[in-house]
Amino acid sequence: MQHPRRFLASGWNIGIKDNTLDFGVIHSEIPCAAAGVFTRNNFPGHPVVIGREHLKTGTAQTIVVNSKNANVATGPDGKRIAEAVCRAAAEALGIPVTSVIPSSTGVIGRPMPEEKVLSAAAAIPSHLKSNDFELFSRAIMTTDTRPKLKNAVLANGVRITGVAKGAGMIEPNMATMLSYIVTDARTDSDSLRRLVKAVADRTFNRISVDSDTSTSDTFIMLANGAAEISISFSEKAAEVYNNLENPFEEGVLDSSMTMLDSDSLEFLKAVSLIAKDLALEIVMDGEGATKLIELRVCKARDREQAVRIGRSIINSPLVKTAVYGADPNWGRLVMAVGKSFDDPVPEDGFDILFADRSLKNADPESLHFMSEYLKQKKVDITVILGTGQAAETLWGCDLTEEYIHINAHYTT
Amino acid sequence: MQHPRRFLASGWNIGIKDNTLDFGVIHSEIPCAAAGVFTRNNFPGHPVVIGREHLKTGTAQTIVVNSKNANVATGPDGKRIAEAVCRAAAEALGIPVTSVIPSSTGVIGRPMPEEKVLSAAAAIPSHLKSNDFELFSRAIMTTDTRPKLKNAVLANGVRITGVAKGAGMIEPNMATMLSYIVTDARTDSDSLRRLVKAVADRTFNRISVDSDTSTSDTFIMLANGAAEISISFSEKAAEVYNNLENPFEEGVLDSSMTMLDSDSLEFLKAVSLIAKDLALEIVMDGEGATKLIELRVCKARDREQAVRIGRSIINSPLVKTAVYGADPNWGRLVMAVGKSFDDPVPEDGFDILFADRSLKNADPESLHFMSEYLKQKKVDITVILGTGQAAETLWGCDLTEEYIHINAHYTT
Repeated sequence: MQHPRRFLASGWNIGIKDNTLDFGVIHSEIPCAAAGVFTRNNFPGHPVVIGREHLKTGTAQTIVVNSKNANVATGPDGKRIAEAVCRAAAEALGIPVTSVIPSSTGVIGRPMPEEKVLSAAAAIPSHLKSNDFELFSRAIMTTDTRPKLKNAVLANGVRITGVAKGAGMIEPNMATMLSYIVTDARTDSDSLRRLVKAVADRTFNRISVDSDTSTSDTFIMLANGAAEISISFSEKAAEVYNNLENPFEEGVLDSSMTMLDSDSLEFLKAVSLIAKDLALEIVMDGEGATKLIELRVCKARDREQAVRIGRSIINSPLVKTAVYGADPNWGRLVMAVGKSFDDPVPEDGFDILFADRSLKNADPESLHFMSEYLKQKKVDITVILGTGQAAETLWGCDLTEEYIHINAHYTT
Repeated sequence: MQHPRRFLASGWNIGIKDNTLDFGVIHSEIPCAAAGVFTRNNFPGHPVVIGREHLKTGTAQTIVVNSKNANVATGPDGKRIAEAVCRAAAEALGIPVTSVIPSSTGVIGRPMPEEKVLSAAAAIPSHLKSNDFELFSRAIMTTDTRPKLKNAVLANGVRITGVAKGAGMIEPNMATMLSYIVTDARTDSDSLRRLVKAVADRTFNRISVDSDTSTSDTFIMLANGAAEISISFSEKAAEVYNNLENPFEEGVLDSSMTMLDSDSLEFLKAVSLIAKDLALEIVMDGEGATKLIELRVCKARDREQAVRIGRSIINSPLVKTAVYGADPNWGRLVMAVGKSFDDPVPEDGFDILFADRSLKNADPESLHFMSEYLKQKKVDITVILGTGQAAETLWGCDLTEEYIHINAHYTT
């Protein structure tokens, strides 16, 4: 993989819990435009609070992450330690403390091993010999079964690398558990802020593993400009992007985002796709999940209605277990639509499609076909509300015994 | 058990799915004051729509229920059949059709076996030889593992019998899956309507098995007056009851409901308790559940906040699996409180108690004690928000592999 120029990355073990990788760093040799979005959970982790503060400068250079401990609900000690980690990293790297963005993920409410993380932060330069994003992507894993790393090299030479982690406590609201996209394109922090928000809203904010919104959700982008290619993303562009019915449909960005120059357009397309791919990898690696559900809610009154009803479906334990059991269950889907109390849907125009076949009054042959279809690894469900013309896409997964097993025995 | 005078009840098999009991009737020999509340799901079953209409008269005499088929999302045929069942029962019993309240529970979206249910309705009189509520309570079961039947005989001679069913698709909103309370007290339909609503709100509307609100939820009360004891429940009484912090606390109803005469007070106490017991039996019999969680959310800004945060906790898959794993998991509870985005809670006054021990900064001995405590069949969790003085109680259950097993393989 060709990673963005002048970025270094690594991951190593500092013994927080066991001998697996638990500390990772991404560092740009030169200052970057930086932007990020974080969890809406009312008890954010200390690193989230600090990261929000540091990103107000619009610049950053280093992302420092530990796994195995989330540093959430750890009181004043947790805050002090998170700040000390940033200071130690900044001193070691010779950069301002606000250029360090910290993240922690893992168990909530356990004291941080202060000495271990402080020594690790001081030792960062000795580990930053190459751009080993693979090691970094492994160091941030918790219950993930595989690293999540995506890469793009554009025709103009710009490189983009995205990394994410997450498997449980996933219904991001603002961003996913932890996700970082770095690039050597050049841009301003306002453009980056708009881009981060717009892209997060159509990718990480549209997935759910278990309806539980983490206290650590973080999505950050860094752009260091080393490729000498400039991109921008104006307010107008953000507005048009936000109003697109489906930014992932073939050709939609090309035909709609005409206000962008070609470098910016290619960049937007690549970042959108990387964010979507990372988001979907999180769902596919959802705790115990065996299937990815792509849910399209269409002919809705407005996009908000489509999202509300979509969330009701994608989070319903009875829909999730029906998909697990390969059961094209009309009744459970109807129930899940109907329990969005403020969104009455007339029965007439309403329908549900599996692989483009109607489930309404399906004959036995169709039901058999759908049941076979539901045995696939990826399942497309379309819900037609008939209340208007808006549409949204959401992604979720099935609910299996393994989810229970992992979560009944994870911290004890 | 001494059941209310002049009520008959039975249950038998009509072969809807297999040879288990699947048809049940409760019938009063004389007209009753009647009131009920039903699901808020936007796709209610046909029997729910008809029952709502019939109860507008404020009187009823007969409850006719089939299990194994919910008659939901079954189109015009389903509606026609549900109406025909009411007519056939009314003709056979010689009562007005509006005096028949129908219910159906079971699979959603399957055609109703028309001939079977119509013959059964016509044959009702031949089955109504006694007041066998036990048979009735078994006939309405679906994934329930045991019947749910409660009885009370008051000092003044009034008798009350309550029956319920429900195990999955349970987060009632207005009422639970199916629940009936009949009495030989005398009352007017306005009193009964107020009573049904007030009691449902503190019992059936405070439980959740899986956050999925059924399309068939129904709670109905019939009072036929055969005991010659009159009770009433005024608007003022309903208002005071609705504002009680905890109607189930020892002595609260005695000291607060002073506007009621003694017969009405004793009646209210008995009905509240029966409804609560039935609601809790539904949770304890929740699909795959091994533990009952009684969640007390207190020091909330208002009761609505307590309920919102309470639902967020009681429905969180990660909290439910932690309870299953006997893990006193501070972090998951904090997460579940924090993901109620519109209810910020300051960390200072916030605490969580298991069996009255504080989980905040708990030492290892306390954590061990709590872990042992969580192995019990009933678990009390108290969440202190510190945002005000209001409180609410909700009930839920743990989430286990068995829930998945039941729901991945139930209809196929």
